[in-house]
Amino acid sequence: MQLLEERIRRDGIVKPGNVLKVDSFLNHQMDVELFQEMGKEFRKLFPSEKINKILTIEASGIGIACITAQFFNAPVVFAKKSQSINLDGEQYTTKIESFTHKRVYDVIVAKKFLGKDDHVLIIDDFLANGCAVAGLIDLVSSAGAVIEGVGIAIEKGFQEGGKLLRRKGIRVESLAIVESMDAETGEITFR
Amino acid sequence: MQLLEERIRRDGIVKPGNVLKVDSFLNHQMDVELFQEMGKEFRKLFPSEKINKILTIEASGIGIACITAQFFNAPVVFAKKSQSINLDGEQYTTKIESFTHKRVYDVIVAKKFLGKDDHVLIIDDFLANGCAVAGLIDLVSSAGAVIEGVGIAIEKGFQEGGKLLRRKGIRVESLAIVESMDAETGEITFR
Repeated sequence: MQLLEERIRRDGIVKPGNVLKVDSFLNHQMDVELFQEMGKEFRKLFPSEKINKILTIEASGIGIACITAQFFNAPVVFAKKSQSINLDGEQYTTKIESFTHKRVYDVIVAKKFLGKDDHVLIIDDFLANGCAVAGLIDLVSSAGAVIEGVGIAIEKGFQEGGKLLRRKGIRVESLAIVESMDAETGEITFR
Repeated sequence: MQLLEERIRRDGIVKPGNVLKVDSFLNHQMDVELFQEMGKEFRKLFPSEKINKILTIEASGIGIACITAQFFNAPVVFAKKSQSINLDGEQYTTKIESFTHKRVYDVIVAKKFLGKDDHVLIIDDFLANGCAVAGLIDLVSSAGAVIEGVGIAIEKGFQEGGKLLRRKGIRVESLAIVESMDAETGEITFR
């Protein structure tokens, strides 16, 4: 998606350790107009009328998922990273290792919000090693729901996540795939 | 806001300990169509053209803030509950005690996303004792930005948060104010 690639080139900052900072428009400050264009693009990429639920994970996936959901007329469910006293029902649970925070989270979705009649589109801001998406797929599978696909804003094409998911037959569509990036020059090459 | 009150009456569940579960439409599964109506209402309540930024806190405020931001043509900034390696710049910090999670969080906003030229509308899903909103106001004040107001989905009118904020001269608009609720009968009375 050209608009997103241009924005990453303009405002993204490459940091050592394969970190791409896009916090000025994607995951700390959020450019909602850009999200609308991304949402329209996800709708084009996933035109299936069967999709009735958008699944994401807190926190940075929620904004993109909500704006995108408007183009699917579907509710969003976000997986939660820790148990709160407000979640006392039965839950699907999995564990996800966070690249950004260098730790493992217990991740949960209440069973009542994901079931065998659901056709789920997973949305997230980043795909790197694929741990977050793999965890969300695990939750969907536990529920017996159908995974219609995975929509990602930015995929780090030089990490394994995308390849591993596609090899399993899961349809992954990333709006921008970074082929390589250089922390010294700041250069970003897209696939 | 009648639509929201009706939805709370229909799908909200009152639990012991002053807990109102609205996770089927507000803060776990999210009804984006309802959020659109809430966003329109916030725009009516805060018509100021000066508002150029929506501030919220992860995780459950993000969805409402993003949908609402569309009616303000403004970006959303969400305060983060813990430091990540992607946030290496200068930050405004505060501490917020969570009613739901019974713990104190360090909460941060990168300085580059909040400054003295900003006119900020704070958006959150719940207002109870007011700790989260007070923390967000602290961040806005640290930045020298102007607080245009606070927009809340559900205020627990029987707790002190709303009263304390309004007493300080802050304009707080809550789309639904719960006057009382009864965990035994499930009855909810709105102000």
